[in-house]
Amino acid sequence: MGRVNFVKFKLNRFEYVKPFHITNSISYDTENIEVVVELDNGIVGYGEASPSFRVNGEKVQVLLALEPVINEMIVGMDVREYRKIFDETDKLKAAPSIKAAVQYAVLDAFSEEIGVPVYQLFGGAKRELETDYTISIGTLDERLREAKEIVARGHSVIKIKVGENLEEDIQAVIAISEVSKGCKYIVDANMGYTPKQAVKFVTELYRAGVDIAVFEQPVWMFDIEGLKYVRWNSP
Amino acid sequence: MGRVNFVKFKLNRFEYVKPFHITNSISYDTENIEVVVELDNGIVGYGEASPSFRVNGEKVQVLLALEPVINEMIVGMDVREYRKIFDETDKLKAAPSIKAAVQYAVLDAFSEEIGVPVYQLFGGAKRELETDYTISIGTLDERLREAKEIVARGHSVIKIKVGENLEEDIQAVIAISEVSKGCKYIVDANMGYTPKQAVKFVTELYRAGVDIAVFEQPVWMFDIEGLKYVRWNSP
Repeated sequence: MGRVNFVKFKLNRFEYVKPFHITNSISYDTENIEVVVELDNGIVGYGEASPSFRVNGEKVQVLLALEPVINEMIVGMDVREYRKIFDETDKLKAAPSIKAAVQYAVLDAFSEEIGVPVYQLFGGAKRELETDYTISIGTLDERLREAKEIVARGHSVIKIKVGENLEEDIQAVIAISEVSKGCKYIVDANMGYTPKQAVKFVTELYRAGVDIAVFEQPVWMFDIEGLKYVRWNSP
Repeated sequence: MGRVNFVKFKLNRFEYVKPFHITNSISYDTENIEVVVELDNGIVGYGEASPSFRVNGEKVQVLLALEPVINEMIVGMDVREYRKIFDETDKLKAAPSIKAAVQYAVLDAFSEEIGVPVYQLFGGAKRELETDYTISIGTLDERLREAKEIVARGHSVIKIKVGENLEEDIQAVIAISEVSKGCKYIVDANMGYTPKQAVKFVTELYRAGVDIAVFEQPVWMFDIEGLKYVRWNSP
């Protein structure tokens, strides 16, 4: 068999080791929802939703209220026909993070049932994934200390949060690059710059010899003309 | 394990029970290439290519000459990392039918290795697929006889080849619909109509109460303006 017996949500609260500061937002903790899918043969699959009100408009209390809805949707369905479960849960258009967590839990249970890891199910394209480590917005000293810690821990992809103060950001990224030679940099302005500021930012970094791998959210997300301007005026 | 030991091609020739007549082409037989992928643990996967020179520019002799190339590409690779094998074989841009056959054979071997049918691997969206049965171009009598046979065999989706004679086609489709009530119709002109003929064709059928499910290749494939015309002027 492999039919869904029940779906259960569990709220987990995580406190950050230190505050996480990005443009217009400082957070001290996060609340994630763990999704447990139990099958009638006792197999259990797990998923996790990390909702963001800022990004998706999702509220944790609202997502928790979906537990009975999702049970009604998929209890009794067979994970060996997970595409049918996906077709049902794809209707959760206003709750993308919980939808993804439920679907992943279903895949996890299917994977357990057939004894094949999920990464092989989808073709085993990679055996390793490199993740980045993030430097919050802070004073130059704080940022440099974080950069040195990250390099010491062996990471080689660094995400740098910028977007609140153009001149400080430029100086900080240059200084960070000097203490982390050989690393790749993702700079993330979380929509904090104007289009002209964003172009000035990358142009000055380019002149200083700092190569940026990804420039994330330079300007306001709906400013399509501004994004085009940044795209066509970046070095 | 699950590594590819060798890939073998086999040419199969099939003669049609009766000639297959579509716009500008009558065929009496077809040559398909069977692809066998054998793993080092003895597991065997099968695929099949049905190349069409008219559609893809593929020639059977050319595809057969790819056998050593494909062996060099994927021998030793592990089907549990089939996405990597796909990345390699995706380079066969000039031989789409053999590429698909090889990739399917790899999936078939992977499926055999893990003991999970391919349809479940991809989520088991459906347990049954309804296929259509095709009526060639022919005299009205021949077409009606074919239609009756198809219905008698229990099919309920009928593909009707048209595109060589507009007036005959209209009369034929109407007559066919009368001897096959309740069936769904796919009409396929194999690019045989002008845009105006195509619109006349569907308009007259619509007036006669015949509902077409799909109108395949009404006009020349690269006539984008003509396709738009048909799209916007069809009932």
